[in-house]
Amino acid sequence: MISLIEDLYPICRSIMGPGTRSTLDRIASEIPITREGVASGTQVLDWIVPDEWEVRDAYIAREGSDERLVDFRASNLHVVSHSVAVDAVVDRDELDEHLHSLPDRPDAVPYRTSYYSPTWGFCVSHDQRAALPAGDYHVVIDSTLAPGRLEWGELLIPGEIDREMLITTHICHPSLVNDNLSGIAALVEVGRWLASVNRRYSYRLLFLPGTIGSISWLAQATSIQRIDHGLVITGLGDPSGFTYKRSRRGHRDIDRIAAEVLRHVEGSRVVDFSPYGYDERQFCSPGFDLPVGRLTRGVHGEYPEYHTSADDFDFFSGHQLDTAVDLLVDVVDAVEANRTYRNTSPYGEVQLGRRGLYRSTGGAIDSQAVEMAYLWVLNASDGTTDLCDIAHQSGLRPAVISEAVRRLVEADLLEIA
Amino acid sequence: MISLIEDLYPICRSIMGPGTRSTLDRIASEIPITREGVASGTQVLDWIVPDEWEVRDAYIAREGSDERLVDFRASNLHVVSHSVAVDAVVDRDELDEHLHSLPDRPDAVPYRTSYYSPTWGFCVSHDQRAALPAGDYHVVIDSTLAPGRLEWGELLIPGEIDREMLITTHICHPSLVNDNLSGIAALVEVGRWLASVNRRYSYRLLFLPGTIGSISWLAQATSIQRIDHGLVITGLGDPSGFTYKRSRRGHRDIDRIAAEVLRHVEGSRVVDFSPYGYDERQFCSPGFDLPVGRLTRGVHGEYPEYHTSADDFDFFSGHQLDTAVDLLVDVVDAVEANRTYRNTSPYGEVQLGRRGLYRSTGGAIDSQAVEMAYLWVLNASDGTTDLCDIAHQSGLRPAVISEAVRRLVEADLLEIA
Amino acid sequence: MISLIEDLYPICRSIMGPGTRSTLDRIASEIPITREGVASGTQVLDWIVPDEWEVRDAYIAREGSDERLVDFRASNLHVVSHSVAVDAVVDRDELDEHLHSLPDRPDAVPYRTSYYSPTWGFCVSHDQRAALPAGDYHVVIDSTLAPGRLEWGELLIPGEIDREMLITTHICHPSLVNDNLSGIAALVEVGRWLASVNRRYSYRLLFLPGTIGSISWLAQATSIQRIDHGLVITGLGDPSGFTYKRSRRGHRDIDRIAAEVLRHVEGSRVVDFSPYGYDERQFCSPGFDLPVGRLTRGVHGEYPEYHTSADDFDFFSGHQLDTAVDLLVDVVDAVEANRTYRNTSPYGEVQLGRRGLYRSTGGAIDSQAVEMAYLWVLNASDGTTDLCDIAHQSGLRPAVISEAVRRLVEADLLEIA
Repeated sequence: MISLIEDLYPICRSIMGPGTRSTLDRIASEIPITREGVASGTQVLDWIVPDEWEVRDAYIAREGSDERLVDFRASNLHVVSHSVAVDAVVDRDELDEHLHSLPDRPDAVPYRTSYYSPTWGFCVSHDQRAALPAGDYHVVIDSTLAPGRLEWGELLIPGEIDREMLITTHICHPSLVNDNLSGIAALVEVGRWLASVNRRYSYRLLFLPGTIGSISWLAQATSIQRIDHGLVITGLGDPSGFTYKRSRRGHRDIDRIAAEVLRHVEGSRVVDFSPYGYDERQFCSPGFDLPVGRLTRGVHGEYPEYHTSADDFDFFSGHQLDTAVDLLVDVVDAVEANRTYRNTSPYGEVQLGRRGLYRSTGGAIDSQAVEMAYLWVLNASDGTTDLCDIAHQSGLRPAVISEAVRRLVEADLLEIA
Repeated sequence: MISLIEDLYPICRSIMGPGTRSTLDRIASEIPITREGVASGTQVLDWIVPDEWEVRDAYIAREGSDERLVDFRASNLHVVSHSVAVDAVVDRDELDEHLHSLPDRPDAVPYRTSYYSPTWGFCVSHDQRAALPAGDYHVVIDSTLAPGRLEWGELLIPGEIDREMLITTHICHPSLVNDNLSGIAALVEVGRWLASVNRRYSYRLLFLPGTIGSISWLAQATSIQRIDHGLVITGLGDPSGFTYKRSRRGHRDIDRIAAEVLRHVEGSRVVDFSPYGYDERQFCSPGFDLPVGRLTRGVHGEYPEYHTSADDFDFFSGHQLDTAVDLLVDVVDAVEANRTYRNTSPYGEVQLGRRGLYRSTGGAIDSQAVEMAYLWVLNASDGTTDLCDIAHQSGLRPAVISEAVRRLVEADLLEIA
Repeated sequence: MISLIEDLYPICRSIMGPGTRSTLDRIASEIPITREGVASGTQVLDWIVPDEWEVRDAYIAREGSDERLVDFRASNLHVVSHSVAVDAVVDRDELDEHLHSLPDRPDAVPYRTSYYSPTWGFCVSHDQRAALPAGDYHVVIDSTLAPGRLEWGELLIPGEIDREMLITTHICHPSLVNDNLSGIAALVEVGRWLASVNRRYSYRLLFLPGTIGSISWLAQATSIQRIDHGLVITGLGDPSGFTYKRSRRGHRDIDRIAAEVLRHVEGSRVVDFSPYGYDERQFCSPGFDLPVGRLTRGVHGEYPEYHTSADDFDFFSGHQLDTAVDLLVDVVDAVEANRTYRNTSPYGEVQLGRRGLYRSTGGAIDSQAVEMAYLWVLNASDGTTDLCDIAHQSGLRPAVISEAVRRLVEADLLEIA
């Protein structure tokens, strides 16, 4: 995952354009995504796909000087994404109207976009902005906005049934590591793993430009009715604990599953849905109302590195990303196992001891998780409770419950309801 | 409101009689209430309207002295309300059986009544009671109990629909400022404001003698089935924060609305229904089971000035009363706006930016309440959630939600469900 | 109760055998239980009744010495229950494989059983085990395992209706006072009291060997469909506060009743059902799913004396057992009174004053429980709320509510719904 992130970091991505295209190329070198897309000008739901943006160079210099004070070649964050072309001399006051900086984080360069409102601008550190003296400046943005194509990457990994779990991440951010090269790398890794294991569900992975990408996908998708579970993933490499954001209704299976898995991961939290954030906004719009939650570590806007040049390799940790992938695997495992079971001997307790499923000496308390899991599964399984309910009632990890379920089914003590 | 309170303060009110009648006269000089009533002896639900009480004078003096030790002319609290007439010489022990005082608040004169059990009594400070020496006393209460009429004031302010919100307050207490000249003044002020604005609901205002008044009103009312919301208001000028007491079922619209409005008012609290308190007891009796909550500041019995001479102009604050009226206006506004809406473009997010409803530069977090309110209203409005639900989920003020609703309806993005 | 406990303490009980039989004899000398049972080898639900165990003597001595280092005659806990016979010389290492002790409680002898797996063993203090030197040991267990009969005691105390409350306790533990001579004594005492009072419900008391006893009872019982409420009682004489463990569904009437009664008993707690514990495991297996909760003081495994020689007369308190019986009486009283009532005058408040049910002087706050209970009962009683609901809403003791109910029914203000 680290080498993928290192390769993708320098690319100037946006919602559309050559940077986004080469990002998808690099992903395709890892897992067999297909390339889908829609042309500029296409109406997608309430939106219209904008023109493609290409930026070749950009800088600010003192009029008459060759020295680039602000230079796109040093960081693609310096140019407001989708800036129109400009080559002009402006005075300090006019320049200032086109500068973006963060007074409360004066050393960081912010990330800004203007996809739907034609303008130009530069992002600089507040310290640098404050140090720019009066006088004339030469501002150059060598960019093109022209009809093109919005593209995304899609991978369907079929399982035993055609009901789907959707996992998506956004690919439109430029040189920001946590948001969202971490999400891209995690989804690639999860995809590789999913392809290597037996699965009941089919899994659809989407690498999407944010907002307009998910809207475009939703506008053309024919598989929406097959989505039983979904996750938007992003920001998985920062130092925070995990945050799961519930889907719109708040109690869909994915919400219950994520809560039970995260209950056993220290420092995690589960928060209610809100109509602000990443692409869950679109999947959870009231017309679609899909069971799609969101998994991140830190939450956008709550950590100071968010959408700034400080979201770099120092902020990111490979270990954090690894544990995030492990967690995604746990969630998928629980999605697969979350069925409703029926105890085949429901009157009185089953004598586990004579089946070798329980210790033979009585009298001592032994709360070994797997024996407790047998008891919980057998007691709860009246055909109306699923694995999530049992995990919730027992406080045991979904993985322990599913292991107990497997062994009890093998012993003919349990059947799928 | 202050001049109304000052005019009403000296009047010796009771559940019936000349003081109550002149109180209604003074209210009628402010807003056009009608006068309704029932005669003494009338059966009203489980009760019988008692005789009217008139008290002209009352005092206690040492036998043979002219000096009034306790004098009705100094405070009408000194006589137990509905005391029968007495003109007798009694010794200190017998006198004591007719005295009421507060050992734990020795400087205050309590307020006591005996509407349904013929007796006589005086209320005094505990200090004064303790200082009365042995010996004979001349006790005089010049009062009459005779068939008359129980009266109340009623004002129906019609709106677009005939569904009603009921707002009531009690008028039977004598010289106690907070309980309940504050409630009377607030209801007059709210009535004046209601008459000046456009309203969907019709509003019925009742100025009632406590208990027997609301019972009498309920016994004859033909509009009960039209009541969608109701509030008993009283005690709105004391130093406490607001207390909303839920209606009997606890989750009626008025309960949800009051909770959302009060959530944003520091120091407020919402408490469950109990069958003890003011006239909500009658409206929330199980046969009627009306959606009527109660708004007060401090709660009866929880503040030491309650039902004593210390409930005077020092205890009361005009500023507290003003903010109570503001709060009532907010509650009424939320009652009016609490409808169910439907997003007309429910698939994906609406592009608010091109309609001028959203900022054009992306990338920065900006949780300006009104933009957030657009997102919440549009996401939630699937035809099943009302304004209260949205306020609850979003944590935004009902007034911000209703402003967002107004603008979205104007932009054809929202319709009433 | 103390003399019963003292008589039962020395007996070597097990799930079957002479000790258990003489325990039932002693109980039968107090209350008229019938004796029921099933033969060894009988299939009961998923289990098979094992052979009967008789132990006459057992000890460990150094080879060649007469001195008993571990002696069954000193404490019947020293032999693992249902040990097979042995008379052998073993070296220290082999001996150790048959010893049970508690490293974290080195002075106590544990209680261990092996009903379904033929083996032999001794229980010793960890200190003693550590002090046994290398060398050869003579181990003797003079026991018999042979076909016999599993027995229990049963007492049906008929009431006005044939709907039943089941109260059970286990009788299979040897010399442990709290677990469970306390439960046996409490059930005897409750049985004696139940027989002396008028009852609506019929009560079935069961003195059962643990697990296999309740399973055997369930396998043959014809009264299961008549059980409306049930309690497993055990461990009622230790120093802890009460613990009520909810039945499987968690909100049956017995759960609600126990919670309301215990709410007023300091130091009590109510915990959710779990499929681990005493015979509630069988009654609450998913096929039966009976409304059976469990009342204990301390919880098995949570106090260090549990299942050790330290569960002796020092650990036990007669006062704690007395208050446990009082509590059981309160629970039964609430079970009897927990009906749904209807206010016969539901419109407005009833005028309690003229019926002598309310004080005549108004104006003062007086929250005397019984007057408040009248108000709560009358307000809540719309035919859908039961005594438990009213206790819950009002925060009043079920006993106060039921007294108010009695008086209101007498005054024709309330009727059974």
